[in-house]
Amino acid sequence: MHASLSLKPALDAIGNAIDQRFDRLLPVPDDPRGRLYEAMRYCAIGGGKRMRPLLVVAACDLFHVDKERALRVAIAVECIHCYSLIHDDLPCMDDDDMRRGKPTLHKEYGEAAAVLAGDALHALAFEVLADEATHEDPFVRSELVFELARASGPVGMAGGQMMDLVAESEVFDLPTTTRLQQLKTGALISFCLEAGAIMGRVGDSQRKRLRGYAKDLGLAFQIADDVLDVEGDSARTGKAVRKDEEAGKATFVSLLGLDRAKQQAEMLIDQAIGHLNGFGQEADLLRAIARFAIERDR
Amino acid sequence: MHASLSLKPALDAIGNAIDQRFDRLLPVPDDPRGRLYEAMRYCAIGGGKRMRPLLVVAACDLFHVDKERALRVAIAVECIHCYSLIHDDLPCMDDDDMRRGKPTLHKEYGEAAAVLAGDALHALAFEVLADEATHEDPFVRSELVFELARASGPVGMAGGQMMDLVAESEVFDLPTTTRLQQLKTGALISFCLEAGAIMGRVGDSQRKRLRGYAKDLGLAFQIADDVLDVEGDSARTGKAVRKDEEAGKATFVSLLGLDRAKQQAEMLIDQAIGHLNGFGQEADLLRAIARFAIERDR
Repeated sequence: MHASLSLKPALDAIGNAIDQRFDRLLPVPDDPRGRLYEAMRYCAIGGGKRMRPLLVVAACDLFHVDKERALRVAIAVECIHCYSLIHDDLPCMDDDDMRRGKPTLHKEYGEAAAVLAGDALHALAFEVLADEATHEDPFVRSELVFELARASGPVGMAGGQMMDLVAESEVFDLPTTTRLQQLKTGALISFCLEAGAIMGRVGDSQRKRLRGYAKDLGLAFQIADDVLDVEGDSARTGKAVRKDEEAGKATFVSLLGLDRAKQQAEMLIDQAIGHLNGFGQEADLLRAIARFAIERDR
Repeated sequence: MHASLSLKPALDAIGNAIDQRFDRLLPVPDDPRGRLYEAMRYCAIGGGKRMRPLLVVAACDLFHVDKERALRVAIAVECIHCYSLIHDDLPCMDDDDMRRGKPTLHKEYGEAAAVLAGDALHALAFEVLADEATHEDPFVRSELVFELARASGPVGMAGGQMMDLVAESEVFDLPTTTRLQQLKTGALISFCLEAGAIMGRVGDSQRKRLRGYAKDLGLAFQIADDVLDVEGDSARTGKAVRKDEEAGKATFVSLLGLDRAKQQAEMLIDQAIGHLNGFGQEADLLRAIARFAIERDR
């Protein structure tokens, strides 16, 4: 069966679970702050593949971590992902008009509200993780906060985004482009897997395997994005395509050519799945996600 | 003695301590991420009154909390404060050219770098608080993260900033303006005091007093800011003045008049100091800060 088909029920389920939790988490207050909550909801609810939340849940499944605990972390990751998309789409950044098939937040609510909604989702991620009311062990809570802050901060995503800015005026080679993507998208994907290990309280060897999986998956995912940027159409992807090419930025496709880029992605996915060899069928979801990463059309 | 004079040694000491720690925390990497670190340093080092860090240290002094522990939280608060100033100054927000006597970050590094540097400082705050290497108790770490995330997120600072945006098109009355300021600046000031109570592991009654002090101080501080905005000159304050008036926003001065605004600030400071009655001379620094809040000229 085609990987994206076998994954569809899992993607639908996580999409609903995340929407439901954001809906509860973001009730619109009847005062001048209401617009902030509306803007946050506009981005957080009803959009995206929810790939990162699914990875968190799949990693937690490996160690039989309770579903509610996993979903809490999944929400925090998705807060970070949403905030990064909002800020990334701003006119001073990538200047995108469309995202997930609808106008970007600043197009709909204005730039100032977009900056603020991004900031608010950023803070919310850490509030969700650190909340004592969750009855999560305080050590686990603070470890999750620490790892997510590293994954999204200057040594992670924000550092990668700065490299991406620099890439507009310098043409990066393959190692630098790889490093850029490992920070920009890879660090947060790694956190998703790491979260399973933290909550499952597993040892270093299992953690190392998950890190290996995450690294290969993240890179393959990005190569597939670059391929989609060339081959895809914006009606399906829900966002503008061929933007990197226009900006003169190096991509895996421009560096490797289309065919070698696709081969490289496939090789990485085989390698990612190889890291799961020590696990049984409890890792089937992670295997399916890996195959989906390069077979998707959006 | 004039309060700002008696406070000067404490302000100088905290300024140096914070600069030193930011310097260590933000070494510039020799790769394309370097520009991000330079931008973060541009804002974080060598500027501002460091009022919030001083409040953290003063609150920790009440309960004999170790200085290094207090400074760690002070750094986290200043990360949040700096990021909020960077995003606030953006063209799509307040569009300010000068801050702390030098060009604002987006003027010097461009808007995209300013968005990213703000985001990176935001994440860094939580990384600093949650770091296991600090040997802080995990329960304390996650409580600090939770309270700081609330203070800066949609139910705190970000919510207040959204109200401030709405204030450009609606004229707020006194209760709404008070609420706006309690969220926009008051929530983070409250966190500074609360942090002392969390780290000192003190009971509810002392916590309540500190919250009372913070609430009155925060409001008085904002009223004094509004007064400075009318009476001050930009050479001293290091930023543009009379911006609120030009934007047609309600301020405490426009709502109360200059004289009543000053009286109100003085009354609030007396009240703030009153909350400290149960404490001895270990609260002298908090008393001096309260007096300084309305006697400063920047």
